[in-house]
Amino acid sequence: MSTVEPAGAGDTAADAVAELVSALPDGMVVTDPTITDGYRQDRALDPAAGTPLAVVRPHRTEQVQTVLRWAGAHRIPVITRGAGTGLSGGATAVDGGIVLSTEKMRDITVDPVTRTAVCQPGLLNAEVKKAVAKHGLWYPPDPSSFEICSIGGNIATNAGGLCCVKYGVTTDYVLGVEVVLADGTAVRLGGPRLKDVAGFSLTKLFVGSEGALGVVTEATLRLLPEQPSSCVVVATFASVRHACEAVLAVTGRMRPAMLEFMDAAAINAVEDKLRMGLDRKAGAMLVAASDERGAAGAEDIALIGSVFTEHGATEVYSTDDPTEGEEFIAARRYAIPAVEAKGPLLLEDVGVPLPALADLVTGIEEIAAQQDLLISVIAHAGDGNTHPLIVHDPTDPENTRRAQLAYGQIMDLALSLGGTITGEHGVGRLKRPWLGDQLGPEVMALNQRIKDALDPTGILNPGAGI
Amino acid sequence: MSTVEPAGAGDTAADAVAELVSALPDGMVVTDPTITDGYRQDRALDPAAGTPLAVVRPHRTEQVQTVLRWAGAHRIPVITRGAGTGLSGGATAVDGGIVLSTEKMRDITVDPVTRTAVCQPGLLNAEVKKAVAKHGLWYPPDPSSFEICSIGGNIATNAGGLCCVKYGVTTDYVLGVEVVLADGTAVRLGGPRLKDVAGFSLTKLFVGSEGALGVVTEATLRLLPEQPSSCVVVATFASVRHACEAVLAVTGRMRPAMLEFMDAAAINAVEDKLRMGLDRKAGAMLVAASDERGAAGAEDIALIGSVFTEHGATEVYSTDDPTEGEEFIAARRYAIPAVEAKGPLLLEDVGVPLPALADLVTGIEEIAAQQDLLISVIAHAGDGNTHPLIVHDPTDPENTRRAQLAYGQIMDLALSLGGTITGEHGVGRLKRPWLGDQLGPEVMALNQRIKDALDPTGILNPGAGI
Repeated sequence: MSTVEPAGAGDTAADAVAELVSALPDGMVVTDPTITDGYRQDRALDPAAGTPLAVVRPHRTEQVQTVLRWAGAHRIPVITRGAGTGLSGGATAVDGGIVLSTEKMRDITVDPVTRTAVCQPGLLNAEVKKAVAKHGLWYPPDPSSFEICSIGGNIATNAGGLCCVKYGVTTDYVLGVEVVLADGTAVRLGGPRLKDVAGFSLTKLFVGSEGALGVVTEATLRLLPEQPSSCVVVATFASVRHACEAVLAVTGRMRPAMLEFMDAAAINAVEDKLRMGLDRKAGAMLVAASDERGAAGAEDIALIGSVFTEHGATEVYSTDDPTEGEEFIAARRYAIPAVEAKGPLLLEDVGVPLPALADLVTGIEEIAAQQDLLISVIAHAGDGNTHPLIVHDPTDPENTRRAQLAYGQIMDLALSLGGTITGEHGVGRLKRPWLGDQLGPEVMALNQRIKDALDPTGILNPGAGI
Repeated sequence: MSTVEPAGAGDTAADAVAELVSALPDGMVVTDPTITDGYRQDRALDPAAGTPLAVVRPHRTEQVQTVLRWAGAHRIPVITRGAGTGLSGGATAVDGGIVLSTEKMRDITVDPVTRTAVCQPGLLNAEVKKAVAKHGLWYPPDPSSFEICSIGGNIATNAGGLCCVKYGVTTDYVLGVEVVLADGTAVRLGGPRLKDVAGFSLTKLFVGSEGALGVVTEATLRLLPEQPSSCVVVATFASVRHACEAVLAVTGRMRPAMLEFMDAAAINAVEDKLRMGLDRKAGAMLVAASDERGAAGAEDIALIGSVFTEHGATEVYSTDDPTEGEEFIAARRYAIPAVEAKGPLLLEDVGVPLPALADLVTGIEEIAAQQDLLISVIAHAGDGNTHPLIVHDPTDPENTRRAQLAYGQIMDLALSLGGTITGEHGVGRLKRPWLGDQLGPEVMALNQRIKDALDPTGILNPGAGI
């Protein structure tokens, strides 16, 4: 690689881009607006998205270093982007910045002996799962978007998913990272050692840092043996409160491998599309799974079923047939597109301590009524992590205003219940106005000290994360 | 609490201590040398330990804040100490500093509904386990010293233990912390939310920071339902290499709940004391456990037993009787005191990626021969984390010199095999000279930037951690 000389103060953006083009292999820096336009927004579809100077698609760590040295010299913001599936606007382009897409960084090496994989950030989560499955191994974190989201984006947001209630979140599976820092230095943190306490826990600091502290160019992932097949139990409840009480009664006693919630609107939206015979009059539905081996799985499901019945389930159905179980889980996964069929969504991600789950969901119902909006709630109930889906009409300013009001009110509600504004999607740009309400001025200042220490010129994803 | 006024530049240490005495309740600041002498060293027994100005034993967070404000104003080093069981000298007193002992901070509240506990740092690990067990819950991390080490110390070192091979280390169970920063500010990070990605992952940064970034005054711990009883299998092998190959063959296929190693010296030392009928001619012994429920546990043990046999085990014995199983585990736990009966120990803590385990253990044998020392190796084999026990005679300078040489050579060997100088004990003061060899100058500088950002005057555990 050629190195980049700092340009003089008088250079123009075009000169700077030309310099980057010449420092990288042909075609790696894209300025054609018909292509770069596709990199302005992520799935948050932020209408305030800027227009990037260029999109850079490196293949290797050294090329990322070149980009960051160049960006530092010119004080050009760098928005790192995985697959662009983020829902909080963490990869929204900014005017005068560049988008650094990791999509071409797709190598993976699986080591079945140490049960680890070393992979680049551009691989999709599903591709990681598939590559390790060939060795009889399993990478647990499973965001609902696992077929389209990248492992780098998962690391940037510390992504969760459905199995987290038993298996934890992304950070629990990241043993090490290679990171390119704001000044272009590449460092390796951690590695394929299951225990390692030498130095501060910097690997963990970079997980969830939303591209604001460095660019992750490689990760060492911890893998598990393949997941045993699951038994699944589905139940409907007359009310949200009954269902939430049932959630508490389950999690206080055992560790389900999945414990998901759908409200009446989600049940009906799914039933509209899939015609599975779901009870349209139910107030809420829970889908639980156990992946304990042998008889223990069936025991778990029997226990969960009886707990559901004790807590007023109107119907309980369980199965140890993997295909049938997968259908119920697929129904839950299908809830987002099913509700989206009613109109564009503002997708929320608030979480609360488990005992506040019912208050959160019923409070969201009140907000929906007050703002005259359809808001369907689905949840990783066992984690207390909900995804209120705010159906709105972006072409109607008045409707949009109410949707945005509701978006904020839902975060305020979660905070009033001791919760978080984001359980697994990240703060990005969309939730940043509420971050201070959650963390308070002293923790915000502490975050800023970390940011200033690692990115003193503020070129890394400015405006996002913190 | 009264607040502390910065003292003038001309004040003496005695004046400063008098000021602290007057700012805190009677008896909280101890200066009586017959008491403070007991706080000079931790279990590393560093002969270079200093003499503290005072030992402070606060009960509450606000008192810790008072101490740190005072220390900041006077630039007085603060060595935070849990139960003093650290093996790397992380709590060694320094001349002119104070020791902040968390031993009186012993509150715990268990919430079975959210399966969390909120506890102060001074509780022993065993006390946490016991308090949560009353609610049918389990706090997994289990350092061998769990009966005498504090949960605050566990958090400071990101402590491991025997069950980590399946259940992970301390950081995996810390959902939130309250931390008093170097300037006396108290902040709450995380909390009883199973998913929360608002702001950087600061909770994780403080876990493992060895008192060098702040003082943890409270932690929110994630708990699991009580552990099912374990089936245990014990096997002896003719050689270390056979045993290490058996370890790899097991961990590549399954997740044992424990997979421990003892070398010939440890087997013999334990047999000297316990007369269990262990095979004194064996080259190595493995103890493995499965806590899978129902028939799955017995299946696991049968599989492990057959893998051991395939890899040359000379004797394999398995049991599903919990009492008998506990005896074998106790034999492994007893290895340290048994070897210590041969003489004082320098206790090492190096780890390697699993495939290098045999090379590490046989390399340590060579170092022992070269330095004419008894070095017994026990290991959390499933994690690749070994504890070479260097028997030495601190009254003999020549012997001590060789023991210290071996201590460094073992770390050099681990690093040459892609390993770490510390898997679970921490860097403390004893291992600091080798930290740069592991991390390299760029990662050391990155650690220092974090340190400088959070402790700009360097009063927190100077000389330890990084």
